[in-house]
Amino acid sequence: MTRQQLVEQIFKKQSYLCVGLDTDITKIPKHLLSEPDPVFSFNKAIIDSTKDLCVSYKINTAFYEALGIKGWESMEKTVRYIGDEHFKIADAKRGDIGNTSDQYARAFFETLPFDAITVAPYMGKDSVQPFLKFYGKWAIVLGLTSNKGADDFEMKKMAREDTRHGVDEFLYERVLKTVSGWGSTENLMFVIGATQADELTHIRKLMPDHFYLVPGVGAQGGSLKEISEKAMTKDCGILMNASRAIIYASEKEDFANEARAIAQQYQFEMQQYLSK
Amino acid sequence: MTRQQLVEQIFKKQSYLCVGLDTDITKIPKHLLSEPDPVFSFNKAIIDSTKDLCVSYKINTAFYEALGIKGWESMEKTVRYIGDEHFKIADAKRGDIGNTSDQYARAFFETLPFDAITVAPYMGKDSVQPFLKFYGKWAIVLGLTSNKGADDFEMKKMAREDTRHGVDEFLYERVLKTVSGWGSTENLMFVIGATQADELTHIRKLMPDHFYLVPGVGAQGGSLKEISEKAMTKDCGILMNASRAIIYASEKEDFANEARAIAQQYQFEMQQYLSK
Repeated sequence: MTRQQLVEQIFKKQSYLCVGLDTDITKIPKHLLSEPDPVFSFNKAIIDSTKDLCVSYKINTAFYEALGIKGWESMEKTVRYIGDEHFKIADAKRGDIGNTSDQYARAFFETLPFDAITVAPYMGKDSVQPFLKFYGKWAIVLGLTSNKGADDFEMKKMAREDTRHGVDEFLYERVLKTVSGWGSTENLMFVIGATQADELTHIRKLMPDHFYLVPGVGAQGGSLKEISEKAMTKDCGILMNASRAIIYASEKEDFANEARAIAQQYQFEMQQYLSK
Repeated sequence: MTRQQLVEQIFKKQSYLCVGLDTDITKIPKHLLSEPDPVFSFNKAIIDSTKDLCVSYKINTAFYEALGIKGWESMEKTVRYIGDEHFKIADAKRGDIGNTSDQYARAFFETLPFDAITVAPYMGKDSVQPFLKFYGKWAIVLGLTSNKGADDFEMKKMAREDTRHGVDEFLYERVLKTVSGWGSTENLMFVIGATQADELTHIRKLMPDHFYLVPGVGAQGGSLKEISEKAMTKDCGILMNASRAIIYASEKEDFANEARAIAQQYQFEMQQYLSK
């Protein structure tokens, strides 16, 4: 999906919601466990009940890999079921030497029909570039993440001698600036955690035109209002992800309706911010 | 596999060789393509012909994921075929927020019988810790990698105000020092690229007791002699990985014998360094 197509979807649906399919077989409603593929049945119901309210689905590969081959099958069925109207993100945090990142790009962009994959930047340029070679496909590189561990390295200061313009910068800023030179606003997004709202105005100044994938609203405590006020651009520029808050809204048979109700609340709120 | 068991295997076999199963279906001998599972047939032949010469196999997950479900099946068959005598590494470069790293740990340590997984450190402590909770299982965290992209972030200097003892340090040094506090020499190794020999004496002083997984010998140009001289400890302390140089030693029907011949050369050389 190209940037233009994504932006069109956002304004058409009045939503920049990404529903995170972090589907944990131990947390889905018990009545689904008798289905041949409980994870897919759960995902299908969530997708059917939310697809008009969101522009994107994010599949967290860890939850599928935990189930081995059967999990990989559920993931493949899910991403194919989503179809072409939604921006399909493999939240996989991959990244390795060039010949290996090439294989990950094949896995998620050719073997599976994802539009984007999340990528860890530690190994540098040749670990990220293989994901940038596909038209209409995206690398979503970790910038400043939503977890406590962001303080360990991402929020550490780099030596001034290495910084441009002689100003101090955090590792995550160095990553944003450096990685942005490897791609364009048409094939590169950044992960910016919703729990990092203090940094958000500054980050938006630094990277004014890139889309951000913003996880951490809901279960992790980030505020949709604050993120939208600080990070929204005229093209929207945000994909706001909620996973647990939506998909586990209920443990009962009505889970899909309850998930829709939460997604509807998010979409309603987003509509207001988009109209500003 | 515990550290003691690994060290015993190394001295018994007089080898610290890890054979990297970066099995690319487009590069394996053509006569295997008529087999029901060509990738597994190739791996099985390589394992059968090298198992007495190496102490470890490293499965590069990217090459399996590139083939989708079928690749995941080949990976599972391969890791189970290797058995309990060898240290089985999932070279997967995973790492995510805590609840997600938990799932990756389940995937590779419970659903699949790997002994170790490579982990990217960017997201900090809660992204690494879930891999350290399993007895006899290991996180192998990226320190200084073998690729050119290591210069982009790993080899950048951190601000002095943040460094301990007031000395400048590179990001990779900060990672080694910080991450080493999260685990022990019984559950934590580091990836140190063989192409980074200039840094190796210094790194060994910094981290005297940890095992290093050293990729980059062979196709990437690192020297086994130099690495062994600079990084070996009394417990050996090194797993030296070669992938392409061994598994693609020949494209013909004799590939397994040719792979054995290369592995034998490495083992012969290692025996000399171990006896010093």
